[in-house]
Amino acid sequence: MKIITNITEMQALVKELKNTNSIGFVPTMGYLHEGHLQLIRKAREVNDITIVSIFVNPLQFGPNEDFASYPRDFERDVSVCREEGVDIIFNPSVAEMYPNPLSVKVLVQARTDVLCGDSRPGHFDGVATVLTKLFHLILPDRVYLGMKDAQQVAVVEGLIADLNFPIELIPIPTVREEDGLAKSSRNVNLNSEERQQAPEIYRALLEARKKIEAGERNIESLVTMIKNNITKKTSGTIDYVEIYSFPELQTIEKVKGKIIIAIAVQFTKARLIDNIVLAVE
Amino acid sequence: MKIITNITEMQALVKELKNTNSIGFVPTMGYLHEGHLQLIRKAREVNDITIVSIFVNPLQFGPNEDFASYPRDFERDVSVCREEGVDIIFNPSVAEMYPNPLSVKVLVQARTDVLCGDSRPGHFDGVATVLTKLFHLILPDRVYLGMKDAQQVAVVEGLIADLNFPIELIPIPTVREEDGLAKSSRNVNLNSEERQQAPEIYRALLEARKKIEAGERNIESLVTMIKNNITKKTSGTIDYVEIYSFPELQTIEKVKGKIIIAIAVQFTKARLIDNIVLAVE
Repeated sequence: MKIITNITEMQALVKELKNTNSIGFVPTMGYLHEGHLQLIRKAREVNDITIVSIFVNPLQFGPNEDFASYPRDFERDVSVCREEGVDIIFNPSVAEMYPNPLSVKVLVQARTDVLCGDSRPGHFDGVATVLTKLFHLILPDRVYLGMKDAQQVAVVEGLIADLNFPIELIPIPTVREEDGLAKSSRNVNLNSEERQQAPEIYRALLEARKKIEAGERNIESLVTMIKNNITKKTSGTIDYVEIYSFPELQTIEKVKGKIIIAIAVQFTKARLIDNIVLAVE
Repeated sequence: MKIITNITEMQALVKELKNTNSIGFVPTMGYLHEGHLQLIRKAREVNDITIVSIFVNPLQFGPNEDFASYPRDFERDVSVCREEGVDIIFNPSVAEMYPNPLSVKVLVQARTDVLCGDSRPGHFDGVATVLTKLFHLILPDRVYLGMKDAQQVAVVEGLIADLNFPIELIPIPTVREEDGLAKSSRNVNLNSEERQQAPEIYRALLEARKKIEAGERNIESLVTMIKNNITKKTSGTIDYVEIYSFPELQTIEKVKGKIIIAIAVQFTKARLIDNIVLAVE
């Protein structure tokens, strides 16, 4: 396994590899967990070369967000990657990625004013800009993202399609605990009572899916049903329950086509998110 | 010579070509003139494959600018490209390039508030966005731009460097008439008296260069000298005479490093621009 910190070296190597090898790319901010491992495994299944980037991107953190205190453990990440058979880790410094103020940036002008994006202005500009740079440095054939952050998947789908990147986006289903709770590093911040209640979020999504399969098409009824379920069965406070077209994330009149049902619930010390995407006739 | 209008076909072909061939790319809005031919010839000298795009990009025209009336002559462009040995013309329709409203765009946040950019808000965002799309579709090793539009060269230099495109930018010197006047399709709009005076713009630039070579480092003296020369020797009205660092286009205290001296002069029915770039000890 190669570890590369230098942009020129990364670009030269990947150009050499491109001639004969397919490249699968897993962009991360490090502190790898089960979700990342799923992405890496999927990448390894179909690509000749798997590249993982580990870069905590200052551009996607707001002024009051936790860039400095974001958890880092490079040694552990390296050994996890080695065990998983990753071919190349790209972990540039901030100075390597942003040597000067940027004369250009990628501005995300849709899909961001809903769900979690609404409360993080500029966050997805930072994500789209760093991914554009990484895509140019790594020249992947396929990029792997987790559906846990469905809004990020939607934004990157638009980035790739609208700017004609020659890259296939592979969204990977959310990894779950046995009781259905979406895996998250934040789950450890739930108290034991909340931890027992938390799977109700996913259960509410599954029940909504069942209703839709049984013919329900009314957005308001579904949202109300989900909210009632979560309010009744958990002590959390609902941040949002929303239904949109996917990946456009636009308001829809009724359930039809490819849609996302997304939920955010605030518990005492942890805000949990979850979603399902459905294709409805 | 292949003519391609379809994005999928363009991308598939170029991926195939990339394995063994170097690609030189000349982006144009068509209506090819002597300046474009220079770019094409330079591209052919060092690349295996030369690709010319012909696309009048609506995104870079302001609401009061001349997108609809911009001159087009595709038949003539095709025969010129064939004569010059161009391998592929890429001429997508507007609907092919912009099938939906863009969810993202490239925002140029430096190098645009000076020279001609100041009076064309959003123009360079449109240029940077379409070039990003074309770069992803054509995957060039080298892109060729004329130094006549030095600000465009500066913006694209920033685009490529800051977003890490694996592309080399090759700026090509301005093509001139025998008397030094920069070639431009607008020169035909000069009356005969103005046409005789117009070479004074370039002469003023050359005289400024001579002064710098003789030791002059004061920006104000140089600008005043140029302005006096042009005012004395032409009937045109000076729009700007400006000196900046290049390609950063930032204000400088004195002449040092790589600099640009740029001029715009308004004649009765034609606005002429010209510039020189110098490396000064």
